[in-house]
Amino acid sequence: MSSDPLVIFTPSGKRGRFPKGTPVLTAARQLGVDLDSVCGGRGICSKCQVSPGYGTFSKHGVTVAPDALSPWNAVEERYDEKRGLKEGRRLGCQATVQGDVVIDVPAESQVHKQVVRKRAEARDIVLNPAVKLYVVEVDEPDMHEPSGDLERLRLALEEQWGLSNVGADLHILQIMQPILRKGAWKVTVAVHLGDQDNPPRIMQIWPGQYEGRVYGLAVDLGSTTIAGHLCDLQSGEVIASSGVMNPQIRFGEDLMSRVSYSMMNPQGAEEMTRAVREGMCGLFTQIAAEAEIDQKLIVDAVFVCNPVMHHLLLGIDPFELGQAPFALATSGAMRLRATDLDLNIHPAARVYLLPCIAGHVGADAAAVALSEAPQKSDDLMLVVDVGTNAEILLGNKEKVLACSSPTGPAFEGAQISSGQRAAPGAIERVEIDPDTKVARFKVIGCDIWSDDEGFEEAVAATGITGICGSGIIEMVAEMRIHGIVDAPGLIGTAEQTGSASVFQDGRTNSYQVYDGTVKGGPKITVTNRDIREIQMAKAALYSGARLLMDKFGVDKVDRVVLAGAFGAHISPRHAMVLGMIPDAPLDKVSSAGNAAGTGARIALLNTDARAEIEKTVHAIHKIETAVEPRFQEHFVNASAIPNAVEPFPILNSLVALPDITFNTGGSGPAGGEGGGRRRRRRAST
Amino acid sequence: MSSDPLVIFTPSGKRGRFPKGTPVLTAARQLGVDLDSVCGGRGICSKCQVSPGYGTFSKHGVTVAPDALSPWNAVEERYDEKRGLKEGRRLGCQATVQGDVVIDVPAESQVHKQVVRKRAEARDIVLNPAVKLYVVEVDEPDMHEPSGDLERLRLALEEQWGLSNVGADLHILQIMQPILRKGAWKVTVAVHLGDQDNPPRIMQIWPGQYEGRVYGLAVDLGSTTIAGHLCDLQSGEVIASSGVMNPQIRFGEDLMSRVSYSMMNPQGAEEMTRAVREGMCGLFTQIAAEAEIDQKLIVDAVFVCNPVMHHLLLGIDPFELGQAPFALATSGAMRLRATDLDLNIHPAARVYLLPCIAGHVGADAAAVALSEAPQKSDDLMLVVDVGTNAEILLGNKEKVLACSSPTGPAFEGAQISSGQRAAPGAIERVEIDPDTKVARFKVIGCDIWSDDEGFEEAVAATGITGICGSGIIEMVAEMRIHGIVDAPGLIGTAEQTGSASVFQDGRTNSYQVYDGTVKGGPKITVTNRDIREIQMAKAALYSGARLLMDKFGVDKVDRVVLAGAFGAHISPRHAMVLGMIPDAPLDKVSSAGNAAGTGARIALLNTDARAEIEKTVHAIHKIETAVEPRFQEHFVNASAIPNAVEPFPILNSLVALPDITFNTGGSGPAGGEGGGRRRRRRAST
Repeated sequence: MSSDPLVIFTPSGKRGRFPKGTPVLTAARQLGVDLDSVCGGRGICSKCQVSPGYGTFSKHGVTVAPDALSPWNAVEERYDEKRGLKEGRRLGCQATVQGDVVIDVPAESQVHKQVVRKRAEARDIVLNPAVKLYVVEVDEPDMHEPSGDLERLRLALEEQWGLSNVGADLHILQIMQPILRKGAWKVTVAVHLGDQDNPPRIMQIWPGQYEGRVYGLAVDLGSTTIAGHLCDLQSGEVIASSGVMNPQIRFGEDLMSRVSYSMMNPQGAEEMTRAVREGMCGLFTQIAAEAEIDQKLIVDAVFVCNPVMHHLLLGIDPFELGQAPFALATSGAMRLRATDLDLNIHPAARVYLLPCIAGHVGADAAAVALSEAPQKSDDLMLVVDVGTNAEILLGNKEKVLACSSPTGPAFEGAQISSGQRAAPGAIERVEIDPDTKVARFKVIGCDIWSDDEGFEEAVAATGITGICGSGIIEMVAEMRIHGIVDAPGLIGTAEQTGSASVFQDGRTNSYQVYDGTVKGGPKITVTNRDIREIQMAKAALYSGARLLMDKFGVDKVDRVVLAGAFGAHISPRHAMVLGMIPDAPLDKVSSAGNAAGTGARIALLNTDARAEIEKTVHAIHKIETAVEPRFQEHFVNASAIPNAVEPFPILNSLVALPDITFNTGGSGPAGGEGGGRRRRRRAST
Repeated sequence: MSSDPLVIFTPSGKRGRFPKGTPVLTAARQLGVDLDSVCGGRGICSKCQVSPGYGTFSKHGVTVAPDALSPWNAVEERYDEKRGLKEGRRLGCQATVQGDVVIDVPAESQVHKQVVRKRAEARDIVLNPAVKLYVVEVDEPDMHEPSGDLERLRLALEEQWGLSNVGADLHILQIMQPILRKGAWKVTVAVHLGDQDNPPRIMQIWPGQYEGRVYGLAVDLGSTTIAGHLCDLQSGEVIASSGVMNPQIRFGEDLMSRVSYSMMNPQGAEEMTRAVREGMCGLFTQIAAEAEIDQKLIVDAVFVCNPVMHHLLLGIDPFELGQAPFALATSGAMRLRATDLDLNIHPAARVYLLPCIAGHVGADAAAVALSEAPQKSDDLMLVVDVGTNAEILLGNKEKVLACSSPTGPAFEGAQISSGQRAAPGAIERVEIDPDTKVARFKVIGCDIWSDDEGFEEAVAATGITGICGSGIIEMVAEMRIHGIVDAPGLIGTAEQTGSASVFQDGRTNSYQVYDGTVKGGPKITVTNRDIREIQMAKAALYSGARLLMDKFGVDKVDRVVLAGAFGAHISPRHAMVLGMIPDAPLDKVSSAGNAAGTGARIALLNTDARAEIEKTVHAIHKIETAVEPRFQEHFVNASAIPNAVEPFPILNSLVALPDITFNTGGSGPAGGEGGGRRRRRRAST
């Protein structure tokens, strides 16, 4: 309706008309405005803050009445009371459009383009791609022995290359005849060699000898980012790597927010499917431009992703994944056409999705298994892919167990008071001075430490904006090492800790990392609530690993592999102090980098690996943490720092953790023996 | 451009703007206006006549200037001189738009909806369709043994029905989960059972026990009409039959006009592909409405068509089929998805196209072979499918030969001065009185003969508009029997023939069948040129049959089967008098009706028949008439009536054909021994 209110967003300038009562967040989503939301519009996260403008905007030709948005509501009231809303701010998910309005999206409410790319790990891969090129000489048509051009081309492939029963997409039939004649009956064809479901098929045809290349894409479709590696299918080389934000972020940062968005909105799943496919197409355009190749030369693609992304990519409502028994629509590998997913690569390109292991353990975990291969290991390997969900594999060549653990988004900087994603300006490394107990730190985008000379100038480009996931882990571990936090997770007082950085913050204490307020910047602190969030996350991760160890019947593992972009940035020592991972020699804790991406690349370049991982996934023992009583038990005991489930002889030989227990409030004498210590002792015996 | 001239067509009211210089026929095509054209816009057929209006059209809000169309051109001048253009008429393919104009399409230039439907022949068919329904009970998901819903459904199909390796389209995955739960883990699935190229696939799923039906379509895609039979796949019954005009008629009536349209217009083939697919969708909507079923329950379809339609349907430019060596893009059977062809049936429906025999002998001929099965016959069978091209099969269980012969459109009433398609008002039966030599006739849509009492009233509903294909055959044969035409094909004078219906018409004579001019109707005559056209057509048909007989090494055949809607209306006796078919006992000449449609239905209902016809087609010996010197030889001698190639002992025992030869003009004495007789004698020795 043209009489619906006009909504204009700044700084993007995007505009549209929406019925009265439309939430600002909904309008932003529909216009593709870069407005953040972590909770999926439930009024919890406050990421969708906006600043409505009132009065006359001559540039936009509108006058905004004071009642252009719905009145301040109870959710906003409560949020303001508890955490404070800046003057003039509204929550985009609460305020609804009532009249023409101009809405500014402040920088902190925008979803930034993440700069940390998932890189392609160096790896030797056996080259046996699904699509290969063949040059053939085809018999000319003979009207006395009439047969179709395709039938003679098939015959040539059989006689000259031993390829039998080769079909062709309709598209090939549509372009083939002039090409055969242009090449004087010599052509190059790209043949997809088929699989158990599909006979081989001609995908592309060129006159004469084609001197160019054909390409494949290995895509790691994450909840936050979509990363792709473009590979030359003849050489196996990675030609370009690129990443984009997953546009689904608009619908909620963590997976469960997206599942709930689809439950609350009738077209929600469809919207999200469209968003992720469009994001994918954007990535492909970007990566092809970077490599300076024609997008239509991309003839094969492999995708890895978690089960929710898997379903949303395929256009399947993830409803069942949001509740027990977490039933996947399909757990098997998928072989599709690119056109089934509206992808803008070669029209006959095929797409392969690795199988899912279980409702919480996706094709990304399968790709990690393909890349890190615990199923081929003599040692007992623990492979942990840390993200919003942690996928955990434990095994050796005898057997492999897998589970997923709901770590939540704390490791990604969310739900942490000064937390943020890994982006320029985020604190990523921390050290606390043993004497002053003051923290020095490093920021993404700046090479020197905060106490180095010239830091102020060096950091000016990015500013200091928050703490990212690996930063918060180091922070908490350092606080524990230097006696600022006790084993149960309490921050002591300035007196108890001897740190001037500690200050009282309501009923608990907080630790100040950095104060930029004099220069108009943020104050970066670690609250006791932040410590709790990290404790919950690491307890979930540890309990999953410990549950698998129980099921395997072992008390220790030989090796720990940290997979994922985040895993690559964690300091193993700090992770162990925190009790995230079991006790292990530090030289046996390694990072596999983007193992899921590497697995995708292996499946892209070697079709034998596809059959192999399908078999492996079938054989993996799946453990559902949600219904395992042992998991709950471990979880309760694993919140101590380090956890109270097992002894840490190796860790203890490296770091002497102060044996302290703080007690704030009235629940016991300050500095006395706390419950955490007792729990830890009990677990150690 | 909005400043381009506005073109309004009446009576349809369709309008659009076109650049100056656009031919009226092109504008009509682009707007989908019902304006006939047989020659594909080459200025030959005059079917595209239009009446431009000048002056002010207040209803349409335009004023048409006298120069709104291009001036009369040389092609129109010549046509007017030779055949006469009615006052105010222009040829739509010649006149171009120069300004705003209102153009009337007179009734005779409109493509009428053909009422003669290709009917479904009664036939027993073994029932073994590609899609069957199965009720299964599926295990509920178990989070301790996680597997996808699809995997458990597959397992149930394997355990309960012995179906292994059953896949599912993405569409099924998208709808399956709520259906499984709604049916309390009991569902009905429709499974396409697969073929050599494709494993079985689930196409549809219903909760619980589905009590409805699924349907298939057998489609006979002709150059002029598209006819479909909707079949119940469980019972094999034909539920509804329907037909529509092939919308490609706009681009030329005969196939070669369409091939040349695609050569002359860069997007021509695409336009025609779009047109035929849209026509198809229109038919499906119509047939589903007639049967009162949901179109989405149509889960399988079989198509038969000639090679040009085959290519245009598939979106392949038919260019190569227009020139030697007539190379098909593919001759094999095609197994596609309905979505590949933009068809509006079940999204996962499969489409099967029968194989083509050769560049001129299509999937329709293969369907005739499937239906009439000369390859299984003890007798030597000649099967002739008469159309714009005649497809001819000759064979028995030893071997089968096939060829196509370019009969041209004369048998369909085109290129005949009073010719028209088989539609109400067309003369379809003729008898000449032996004494008065005056013709009596029957008209389609009227049950009584022209000399019966009450004829004038009975025929008033349809009028008498022309002669259709079967009518012209009887007409010429009757003229030959009654001495009005001689063996070489000349019409004698009124004196020579003793018929008052004969009149001098330029340098030759014509025969008047009916004169409706006093009542403002047409004068229906047979000119000597019409006789020539029929001679050419029947000579082509006969020569093809004769060539196959030579190749087979026989002089006679045991049986003759006339296939096609037209074949069903031909009188065998008249066809033999004309020399269309070889001499054979009249009781051995039969009509198979719509054999191609029957073949399509067999392939739809019995997948074994698909494999069978693919093998048969592979084994058929293909003969290309275009390059056979013997064909040219036969053709020269086959123009006599009956032909001069062989003796007609059976025919001669039935009819005493007058042994006359007329001679008009200066090439010999009138009534003397003509070349035709001598040729015939020579051929008889």
